[in-house]
Amino acid sequence: MSYIQNNFLLKNRTAEALYFNYAKDMPIFDYHCHLPERQILENKPFSDIYEIWLAGDHYKWRLMRNYGADEEYITGNKSNREKFLTYCRVLGTAFGNPLYHWSQVELKEYFGCELEINEANAEAIWEQCNDYIRKNNITPQSLIEGSNVAALFTTNEVFDDLTVFEEIAKKGYQFRVAPAFRADKIMNIEAPQYLTFLGKLEALTHPIKGITDLEAALEARLQAFLKVGARASDIAVEYVCDIPDAAEADRVLRAVLDGAKPTAEEIDIFKGYLTYSLMKLYAKYNVATELHLGAMRNNNAKMLAKLGLDTGFDSISDRNSISKLSRLMDRLNSEDALPKLILFNLNPKMNAELMTLLGCFQTNEAKGKIQYGPAWWFLDNKVGMERHIDDLTSTGHLAAFVGMLTDSRSLLSYPRHHYFRRILCNYLGTLIENGEMTADMELVGSVVRDICFNNSMKYFDM
Amino acid sequence: MSYIQNNFLLKNRTAEALYFNYAKDMPIFDYHCHLPERQILENKPFSDIYEIWLAGDHYKWRLMRNYGADEEYITGNKSNREKFLTYCRVLGTAFGNPLYHWSQVELKEYFGCELEINEANAEAIWEQCNDYIRKNNITPQSLIEGSNVAALFTTNEVFDDLTVFEEIAKKGYQFRVAPAFRADKIMNIEAPQYLTFLGKLEALTHPIKGITDLEAALEARLQAFLKVGARASDIAVEYVCDIPDAAEADRVLRAVLDGAKPTAEEIDIFKGYLTYSLMKLYAKYNVATELHLGAMRNNNAKMLAKLGLDTGFDSISDRNSISKLSRLMDRLNSEDALPKLILFNLNPKMNAELMTLLGCFQTNEAKGKIQYGPAWWFLDNKVGMERHIDDLTSTGHLAAFVGMLTDSRSLLSYPRHHYFRRILCNYLGTLIENGEMTADMELVGSVVRDICFNNSMKYFDM
Amino acid sequence: MSYIQNNFLLKNRTAEALYFNYAKDMPIFDYHCHLPERQILENKPFSDIYEIWLAGDHYKWRLMRNYGADEEYITGNKSNREKFLTYCRVLGTAFGNPLYHWSQVELKEYFGCELEINEANAEAIWEQCNDYIRKNNITPQSLIEGSNVAALFTTNEVFDDLTVFEEIAKKGYQFRVAPAFRADKIMNIEAPQYLTFLGKLEALTHPIKGITDLEAALEARLQAFLKVGARASDIAVEYVCDIPDAAEADRVLRAVLDGAKPTAEEIDIFKGYLTYSLMKLYAKYNVATELHLGAMRNNNAKMLAKLGLDTGFDSISDRNSISKLSRLMDRLNSEDALPKLILFNLNPKMNAELMTLLGCFQTNEAKGKIQYGPAWWFLDNKVGMERHIDDLTSTGHLAAFVGMLTDSRSLLSYPRHHYFRRILCNYLGTLIENGEMTADMELVGSVVRDICFNNSMKYFDM
Repeated sequence: MSYIQNNFLLKNRTAEALYFNYAKDMPIFDYHCHLPERQILENKPFSDIYEIWLAGDHYKWRLMRNYGADEEYITGNKSNREKFLTYCRVLGTAFGNPLYHWSQVELKEYFGCELEINEANAEAIWEQCNDYIRKNNITPQSLIEGSNVAALFTTNEVFDDLTVFEEIAKKGYQFRVAPAFRADKIMNIEAPQYLTFLGKLEALTHPIKGITDLEAALEARLQAFLKVGARASDIAVEYVCDIPDAAEADRVLRAVLDGAKPTAEEIDIFKGYLTYSLMKLYAKYNVATELHLGAMRNNNAKMLAKLGLDTGFDSISDRNSISKLSRLMDRLNSEDALPKLILFNLNPKMNAELMTLLGCFQTNEAKGKIQYGPAWWFLDNKVGMERHIDDLTSTGHLAAFVGMLTDSRSLLSYPRHHYFRRILCNYLGTLIENGEMTADMELVGSVVRDICFNNSMKYFDM
Repeated sequence: MSYIQNNFLLKNRTAEALYFNYAKDMPIFDYHCHLPERQILENKPFSDIYEIWLAGDHYKWRLMRNYGADEEYITGNKSNREKFLTYCRVLGTAFGNPLYHWSQVELKEYFGCELEINEANAEAIWEQCNDYIRKNNITPQSLIEGSNVAALFTTNEVFDDLTVFEEIAKKGYQFRVAPAFRADKIMNIEAPQYLTFLGKLEALTHPIKGITDLEAALEARLQAFLKVGARASDIAVEYVCDIPDAAEADRVLRAVLDGAKPTAEEIDIFKGYLTYSLMKLYAKYNVATELHLGAMRNNNAKMLAKLGLDTGFDSISDRNSISKLSRLMDRLNSEDALPKLILFNLNPKMNAELMTLLGCFQTNEAKGKIQYGPAWWFLDNKVGMERHIDDLTSTGHLAAFVGMLTDSRSLLSYPRHHYFRRILCNYLGTLIENGEMTADMELVGSVVRDICFNNSMKYFDM
Repeated sequence: MSYIQNNFLLKNRTAEALYFNYAKDMPIFDYHCHLPERQILENKPFSDIYEIWLAGDHYKWRLMRNYGADEEYITGNKSNREKFLTYCRVLGTAFGNPLYHWSQVELKEYFGCELEINEANAEAIWEQCNDYIRKNNITPQSLIEGSNVAALFTTNEVFDDLTVFEEIAKKGYQFRVAPAFRADKIMNIEAPQYLTFLGKLEALTHPIKGITDLEAALEARLQAFLKVGARASDIAVEYVCDIPDAAEADRVLRAVLDGAKPTAEEIDIFKGYLTYSLMKLYAKYNVATELHLGAMRNNNAKMLAKLGLDTGFDSISDRNSISKLSRLMDRLNSEDALPKLILFNLNPKMNAELMTLLGCFQTNEAKGKIQYGPAWWFLDNKVGMERHIDDLTSTGHLAAFVGMLTDSRSLLSYPRHHYFRRILCNYLGTLIENGEMTADMELVGSVVRDICFNNSMKYFDM
């Protein structure tokens, strides 16, 4: 039996009452994740624990590297079993790391395995979980439905095939799947394959000779996304840029179309304009924007060459500018074109300045129109969440919060919603027991339910 | 009965003993606030709870916007009663927000109302408080004296009418009122009404043709302020600038006098010089400087046009430079012209770098000559205060701290002093119970009394 | 009897068990300090408590200034006794400051004095400690051996006399002493005495006409350091610079050799290149690099002129650039020349961005090849350590951590290792008691032992 008890993270009776009576059984609306929609559609059973749990999870890889594991046992040629055993060994002493909790909870929730993960138990866990997988028909559908998921948004490029979503809708799953519109590959004009990506967009729309063509093509694709249920869009930039004139962005785009390599300054011009233009578009169609700020990607060129993108070599940027973000929001707001916005910030030192800026653009268009998004990526851990709630309560309104998401590529990530819910209930329960807020459990419980599920459903007009 | 108990925020017996035996009954010296001195002089009774409590309080407005309230119910045309009910509804679930505590305490302290603030109780609170106001003669004087205030500093522009302070002195109030000298309107050379402001200063002094005239005029006004009891000055800038030569500042000022609009660079030149020049002036007259750094103002142009300044659309800046502040302090120090300084920093990520810089300029001119001011504005909340005390104890000397202020436009803000005192006593009481500091209650109690009142009285030579 | 109890900082039974059973008796390996090796060699007995405890300790001086003490009683002409009494008075109310704890523990551990330090007890403490010193033969050797120190690294300039280390090795001490290679005086090309320092290096190697000569001279000296047991190097820069070509650094060096004063830009060119070049050199010889980032030195020119360097007028810089550090590490990594690296960061707001960057360059060359060094200097206090462990567990792997050091000029600093160990054990003990990690005490205890001693011994190949 592992250390995970029923009252995990709940340090007093009130916290327990809030969690078990109000939070635990609320459905999950995962409004931002990276699950491959085709995997959900195809719904193939899994064959071993490594395949579901370790393959493709760069969070876990990174932890292994931090402890000096050999890359051969991480992404190399060792067997699934050897890699699994290595991970268990590394995890066994990773006290306090979010994976230390998540991994333990995932084994319990999805495979009924309560052995403590460490080197000594690794073999037994490998056997027990694989045995469980063989005996039960573990599929994407069973994992998602078993997690009480009501709806989820995948993240899709503008040229992705949307028929998959129509087919999923016909499958009779107990959950809804819709794509979030993400134009990153069209935004990242510096990418070597940029013209290829643009070609894919053209193939679905019309020839793109300049910025106006590009904007029209993006609008056409957004309309297609809306038809299959999209309610959200996604923008990811390391930092916010100034907003140049359309003519400047047009010049940069035409140069790239003519084969030029854009300069650092031109990249910022293009991204600055397109961020503005996309948000304006999203406002027009009442599509909420999820803006991800502050990832510095691919720090390790050697490993990028070896393993490619998204393999655990990103970090937190320090290049954001609060005044540029202020000008972006103010410009859109002045043009009545500021969409609903969830800002995900990766650099915790900016929490206070961002929170207070967001508070300058709230209106009655929504309860919490401008959201300070949950603790994300490197901050998605107990300390990060507690600091996030501290910041949210101190300068915002907690009850307007749209709550947690997984942001995950893994079908086993839903326990992170419960992880967050426990932390939230413990936070409130502790305040209640300390006499720092009302003990009206119905009132507090209704707020808990809103944050767990209702607020996000309403926010995205589901 | 609300959740606010006698031992609110005091988590153990030692904390209670410190608060009740040493902190609670100390008088208040509010060394920085924005009360209108004329209101104190005229001393008119209030007529309803909205008027005292919600009208003009942009902290409360902002919280309402964060929860999606309609502006009509905030600053619009709805009745006082409708606005009040809306605020109570919004506040009812704003768990953890400082207003959640302050509002509840204010109703209890000033109107004897202990109903929990929420949507269900809103009507009853409205009736009860207004009834109380009708039955009692609630005036500025009664509110200030009832709060055990010994002295307060209002914030005044250099051209304000100082006779008001002479008249207040004749009223026989149990508290002293003096102005703090604030030259912001003379500093902000980019303001459209700048020449008007300069004209007001000229009218009280002499014609201003260049920087030397301006400095002489400011000195003359400071002398006038000193005559009515001023002991403090106030400077508010988003960020510290380089110190140019007087000739450069002179050139900028003359250009503006000739009708030119200053460039961003010229604005920084002028502000950089004037900040330096003013601090030198304050040192000459042994007037402490309260330097407010880090507010990014008026982010929302639309609402600025609609509602004007100070209506809840400011946020935290990230543009400060620790090296420029170091050079400013070092320059003044090298010229034996560094005044006593209380630095209020709005960006919490700068706490550590600022605290350690201030420690480089301490001398025996005062106990804690250079002060790291209390948690301010967006940081004026439980988490902000606890972090502030953490930073203060870790790299400074807690017992030298001049303590809390309200920085408020409201006559109901004095409970914030008690809020701070409870947090301070809880902090020390917890260390004592944990065996991390002396249990000598007389020694600790004397430090508590110093921080509550004595240190600030001594610091400002009252 | 002072407030320091046996269970100081240990808030529950599990924390106590971890500390007393696993941490307390582990030897100390102080892998970075500033003890003068000659003092260790000469091993002269001390004559009074001031001499060991206050003379030369700019941490203590700074605290005295923060409380308004007169410089005469700090570094001036007052007697040792008067200075000692002043410090005790100041310390008596410095609740929460690390010196408040350290000083009390030091008196207990090294002089058997358990009187609470404050104004009232100051005289008695002075007498009691001096009496103890007279009765016992207190020498550097007795202090170090009494502290169970297995090994320590002093910090040495490249031209320091290394025979001292050979002589120490012959003394039969129970601890090893080796120098860490620190080329700061060769790096700081802006220093007035730069050519003198270069001359000292030339005297031990060969004439230096350009950058290639300089690099060869540094390599020769590193080889000499290795012969007397060096395993570590040390680099201290305020901020990381871009890496220019060798030719650019060569041009700057030659200009300085010709008598020119380098510009700010040239200084950055030289330091940027030399940082890169030195780290490459350290990688070649498998010498770990301890990189100290973020001190802004000598803020107070007046006191610099009066007292010189390292007298308590430094602070935390805000000028670091995470992207430049990323490029430096990536460049070295791409050339297979990234040494083992312990990064000491002085600005806590950068913790998260640094931690996550470091995680991008881990390999199996060592368990935790790239280390996020312990809370350092201004952060070396309870809050700083707790935050550091929070950051380390959240985004790194705690069990790979090489643990604490003193970074101290004082022979009385070893209790800081125990201070850290108590905080570490309390951290883990609390997680265990809260059900947030395994209760397998042997497993957890082995990690505690690793962090206290084994990890650093292995990391430095001792």
